[in-house]
Amino acid sequence: MSILVVGSVAYDTVETPFGRAERVLGGSASFFAVAASFFVPVNLVGVVGRDFGEKQLAAFRGRGIDLEGLERMDGETFHWQGKYSYDLNSRETVCTELNVFEFFKPKIPVRYQQSEHVFLGNIDPVLQREVLDQVERPRLVACDTMNFWIEGKPGELKRTLERVDVLLINDAEARQLSGEWNIVKAARAIRALGPRTLIVKKGEHGVLMFTEDGSFAAPAYPLEEVFDPTGAGDTFAGGFVGYLASALGPTEAPPHPDDVVLRRAVVMGSTLASFCVEAFSLDRLLRLTRTEIDERYRLFKRLTHFESV
Amino acid sequence: MSILVVGSVAYDTVETPFGRAERVLGGSASFFAVAASFFVPVNLVGVVGRDFGEKQLAAFRGRGIDLEGLERMDGETFHWQGKYSYDLNSRETVCTELNVFEFFKPKIPVRYQQSEHVFLGNIDPVLQREVLDQVERPRLVACDTMNFWIEGKPGELKRTLERVDVLLINDAEARQLSGEWNIVKAARAIRALGPRTLIVKKGEHGVLMFTEDGSFAAPAYPLEEVFDPTGAGDTFAGGFVGYLASALGPTEAPPHPDDVVLRRAVVMGSTLASFCVEAFSLDRLLRLTRTEIDERYRLFKRLTHFESV
Repeated sequence: MSILVVGSVAYDTVETPFGRAERVLGGSASFFAVAASFFVPVNLVGVVGRDFGEKQLAAFRGRGIDLEGLERMDGETFHWQGKYSYDLNSRETVCTELNVFEFFKPKIPVRYQQSEHVFLGNIDPVLQREVLDQVERPRLVACDTMNFWIEGKPGELKRTLERVDVLLINDAEARQLSGEWNIVKAARAIRALGPRTLIVKKGEHGVLMFTEDGSFAAPAYPLEEVFDPTGAGDTFAGGFVGYLASALGPTEAPPHPDDVVLRRAVVMGSTLASFCVEAFSLDRLLRLTRTEIDERYRLFKRLTHFESV
Repeated sequence: MSILVVGSVAYDTVETPFGRAERVLGGSASFFAVAASFFVPVNLVGVVGRDFGEKQLAAFRGRGIDLEGLERMDGETFHWQGKYSYDLNSRETVCTELNVFEFFKPKIPVRYQQSEHVFLGNIDPVLQREVLDQVERPRLVACDTMNFWIEGKPGELKRTLERVDVLLINDAEARQLSGEWNIVKAARAIRALGPRTLIVKKGEHGVLMFTEDGSFAAPAYPLEEVFDPTGAGDTFAGGFVGYLASALGPTEAPPHPDDVVLRRAVVMGSTLASFCVEAFSLDRLLRLTRTEIDERYRLFKRLTHFESV
């Protein structure tokens, strides 16, 4: 039961109303891997530059995250700089320096090729398919994407989606990808493109999941202190896929997870994400314990439970 | 077990991307009363003009809605005209003709003075207090307000809130009233003003309730066809207070409803609101059955339920 994650490993410079963090560890694969590592071993594929050192690698060490696939290339590590509005509800990208990430061609180490679960971080959909070509027969492929690819490479993205089991995107992306404003209609159109399960992330408003069994709504945990939303979506994905991978027993045939397991995975993703936003970078996730995770999962139950009439 | 509702009874002219409705029945007290009437008898206090006829009154008749308190004044009925954006997420007020509503001074008929539950629709907070002065000893006072009063009469509003048990407002209003962006902090500040329970309505993103027992999150029902959002908030309030009134047994002391009952009431409010938006005006509510309500309540349970890990 291991997960292959392919995505960015980056330096983030983040400004929020509460402070500023300079060149701290970020990137979709970083948040995903650390979140998923609470549940199962993770195989990380990404690229960093020569400026990426032991201090940064320490975040991944000792957590069951395999780094053979973390390529080191001449040049500098991907650097993203963003600034959040006073209410944290919108952000402006100050600069994006792709650096070595511009030349990223995912190479899947032989040891990773039998990974049973795959998470395709938000990269070029052509590269996402090249990853799938290099793995043997995953039981579950989950995928993220963004407006840049929806607009820029819609055909390639659709070819990728044909091979995806679970797509995780935000509400604006779901509307853009489907051309439907109504989210129920958007979900139907997107599921017709391939993904049996669609997760629509709505930030502080939580998550909607659409499966063949219907829909599931989970709120975001109402936190008193949201410090930095960066990475919350990837952390959600890590908790979601991580829990799924841990919950699926060994089996020959690769059935899609059932609704009970998928719903638990959504809440687990929301749980991990609620910790992520409590501090800059991966700081909160790196000092998180399984006991804290289980306790907050129970709080989600308490937050949403009601009795029949 | 009856509810006194005081608020507007109006003609609405509504334009949505799906059509236009001219001078149809609207107003906060109308939506509230019809929604609440599925649960308990309702005493309606409002004012209409000479142009309000038998056809409009028919909506209230035969549903346990007492109309002795619906005053008829020389002049025309309050008329509101609004136009929704293509995504129904924002609306523009085209015109507001207060007409007789400008001179509304709620007069509570003697028969209504022992109403056990009171809903103060969105009117001048001074008038809201005058209503409370005319009722004997209600078990529960629920209240709505809006940005106009929060900005224009903050002192009067606060005096009213000291006498309110449940405040129902939207997220923007909660932020404005408290001066806090974070909704958890906003809720704490508002509850300190008087209301033991705060309901924050978030439209398509559902509802958050804050009580002394913590918080409760309920989604909006993901509908494939949202036709006209007008009145959804008042319909929510009608379902919420209506269910509460029906669930509280007769008792001498007036205890605040417990969390189990409050949560059911939130879901009942969301259930009623989900029907309201399926058609113009009160059209859907007027042909709604208790069986349909109970069925959708069960769908809400299915939409939100997940198992422990």
